[in-house]
Amino acid sequence: MSLAHTNTHPSAAATGVTAPAGFSAAGVPAGLKSTGKNDVVVVKNHGPEFTAAGVFTSNRVAAAPVHWSKQVLADGRIDAVVLNSGGANACTGAEGFANTHKTAEYVAQLLEVSAGDVAVASTGLIGEQLPMDKLLPGVKAAADTLADDQNASDQAAAGIMTTDTVPKLVSRIVGESGSGQVIIGGMAKGAGMLAPALATMLVVLTTDAVLTSQQADDALRAATAMSFDRADSDGCMSTNDTVLLLASGASGAAPVMEEFTAALTDACCELAAKLIEDAEGADHTIAIRTYNAATEADALEVSKAVSRSNLVKTAVFGKDPNWGRVLSEVGTTKAAFEPDELNVSINGVMVCKNGGVGEDRNLVNLDERNVSIEIDLNAGTEQATVLTNDLTHDYVHENSAYSS
Amino acid sequence: MSLAHTNTHPSAAATGVTAPAGFSAAGVPAGLKSTGKNDVVVVKNHGPEFTAAGVFTSNRVAAAPVHWSKQVLADGRIDAVVLNSGGANACTGAEGFANTHKTAEYVAQLLEVSAGDVAVASTGLIGEQLPMDKLLPGVKAAADTLADDQNASDQAAAGIMTTDTVPKLVSRIVGESGSGQVIIGGMAKGAGMLAPALATMLVVLTTDAVLTSQQADDALRAATAMSFDRADSDGCMSTNDTVLLLASGASGAAPVMEEFTAALTDACCELAAKLIEDAEGADHTIAIRTYNAATEADALEVSKAVSRSNLVKTAVFGKDPNWGRVLSEVGTTKAAFEPDELNVSINGVMVCKNGGVGEDRNLVNLDERNVSIEIDLNAGTEQATVLTNDLTHDYVHENSAYSS
Repeated sequence: MSLAHTNTHPSAAATGVTAPAGFSAAGVPAGLKSTGKNDVVVVKNHGPEFTAAGVFTSNRVAAAPVHWSKQVLADGRIDAVVLNSGGANACTGAEGFANTHKTAEYVAQLLEVSAGDVAVASTGLIGEQLPMDKLLPGVKAAADTLADDQNASDQAAAGIMTTDTVPKLVSRIVGESGSGQVIIGGMAKGAGMLAPALATMLVVLTTDAVLTSQQADDALRAATAMSFDRADSDGCMSTNDTVLLLASGASGAAPVMEEFTAALTDACCELAAKLIEDAEGADHTIAIRTYNAATEADALEVSKAVSRSNLVKTAVFGKDPNWGRVLSEVGTTKAAFEPDELNVSINGVMVCKNGGVGEDRNLVNLDERNVSIEIDLNAGTEQATVLTNDLTHDYVHENSAYSS
Repeated sequence: MSLAHTNTHPSAAATGVTAPAGFSAAGVPAGLKSTGKNDVVVVKNHGPEFTAAGVFTSNRVAAAPVHWSKQVLADGRIDAVVLNSGGANACTGAEGFANTHKTAEYVAQLLEVSAGDVAVASTGLIGEQLPMDKLLPGVKAAADTLADDQNASDQAAAGIMTTDTVPKLVSRIVGESGSGQVIIGGMAKGAGMLAPALATMLVVLTTDAVLTSQQADDALRAATAMSFDRADSDGCMSTNDTVLLLASGASGAAPVMEEFTAALTDACCELAAKLIEDAEGADHTIAIRTYNAATEADALEVSKAVSRSNLVKTAVFGKDPNWGRVLSEVGTTKAAFEPDELNVSINGVMVCKNGGVGEDRNLVNLDERNVSIEIDLNAGTEQATVLTNDLTHDYVHENSAYSS
């Protein structure tokens, strides 16, 4: 399993959170974004089942909606999710938590469900109260226009975007066609702040599979560990990361869990790749694969260390196959290796052999968007890939100007 | 003790490695740098004692001169140091180590000392062999022009510069004037790659104190832990970091070790501050002080986490007092704190109080070079300060173009 993914979409016209049976969604502009674009989203599970699982930021300064949604998930049930861009509702104290609570209560009232089954997710600037006078009318407009068609998925995916340049949707089919088949749909946002674990990344995954809450939780944790946890844009961890999986059971089919988990992982890898491809100001998407490692943990540690090096990332921006900076990062890890047995290939050219100069670095072409850095530890048979992007003038520009 | 330092120079005219009695130095251009500037340096200890200590990069992919100099220091004695810029001699395999050995042997022959007492330090690009046909004549020219005056210190400090824009020299007086007084001198280079522990940073400290090798080692480790270990420019750790302390005993005086260590620490703090002030492409020098921490280790963990955040660093570049990004980094640590008891002050304005909005962020003025970020953990009485710099367009430019 890796961040590479296959492409088994249900059909060209069915992707996003309404692709599986049993879900409706809406995204509307409520004025939280100054641009007038969609910023409030509701996703509703119509059942017959309401199984759910979630994975959240491990940041101890977590936003109000993260605290709320964790409580909601305690019983493994979610009936609806309300999401907003244009404000993170993080570092907003008691008033911020009250606003999250109020939003969930309002959704519950509109959709005739329990507030304790309404998850909330927010993204945007930290440290500002949400404008409730705009948010609540937006929630009503979204609840009033819920639909299960492709447009609903598209509007919802657009409504969670911040600095993203494109909406990010996904879908997968699991199992043979016929009564045993189930569908997975999903959407994601998050153009920066992807990592160390998760980052301001909001993801809602839906499925019409029949799942127990334990099965949903196991599948979601396995999928995120192989996908979002291995996508690291700038090494920063958000206060708001939320990944939710909602299962309606509307297909009537209980999938083979191994197949379901593989498809969910594949869908998450596609979304993770889309996040990195759209990362703030990035010119290059860099896949860092460490192989021949003693353990998968070693491979992951090395790939992550390299993915967080500003010197490696600026070198790729400058189209400079600077393998010395790669080796220098490998040397900071505790992975098993001997320095004089390391090989590094950049876009297929082994520029470093046995810890020293290898093939001619001038053979490396870094003109294309996708860059492959492969590190051979010569210490075993395990591997892991981490996706990141380069560090560019545009990254500095976007992140120095974001709140000003 | 902190990175702040006092200014007790021996005199306006005596600073750098030849400030203490018993040392001569030279820096010459040997053609390793294409600019024609000084790139080969020799520092000689004339005794009567030859006590020495060293601290090196913890990078497992260490350069040939690091491996060599560690061996030299095994007996706590150094007679001379030869340094070069224009090439790191890292990831250069057996040939690289042979070149380091050959350089030490040549210095030993010229100065009539043992090669096993000649330390070597290199800085520059990784993964290229040193041009020995240029280096060795440079070594001879330096050895032939050793002097103990201020110009010798200046030429030596210039000879270890890479992307540094100014040479960095220091001196301190320890003890009462008269027979008990000893002098400390030093030089440093390293405009980027300062961290996680040390970084391509070469530092040579000299003193005319009478020290045992154990005293020298204890003092140097204490001094680096409070200075260079707390200066973190871009989170990257070099393959070549080397900090050496040479003691000639020429003063005849054995200092009170507490006083000596304090002065050495102070000198190292001054050099560390100069390194950060001259960091590649930086617009701002940022002092991140975490206080009211349960332990000094907690304070250091928090300050270091904040110092490595690209989002904090780009915000400072954009003159944006974005305290949410500071809190978000604090939340990634294991330090003792409650999120709703955190305060953050930027340049004296407490923009975050009790984990939420504090004083008006528009009161913060980030026009000046020096920026203070103070984080109150409200969990104890300990503190620690880490120096870093902002992340700028010029950083991206310099590091994307460095080897091309």
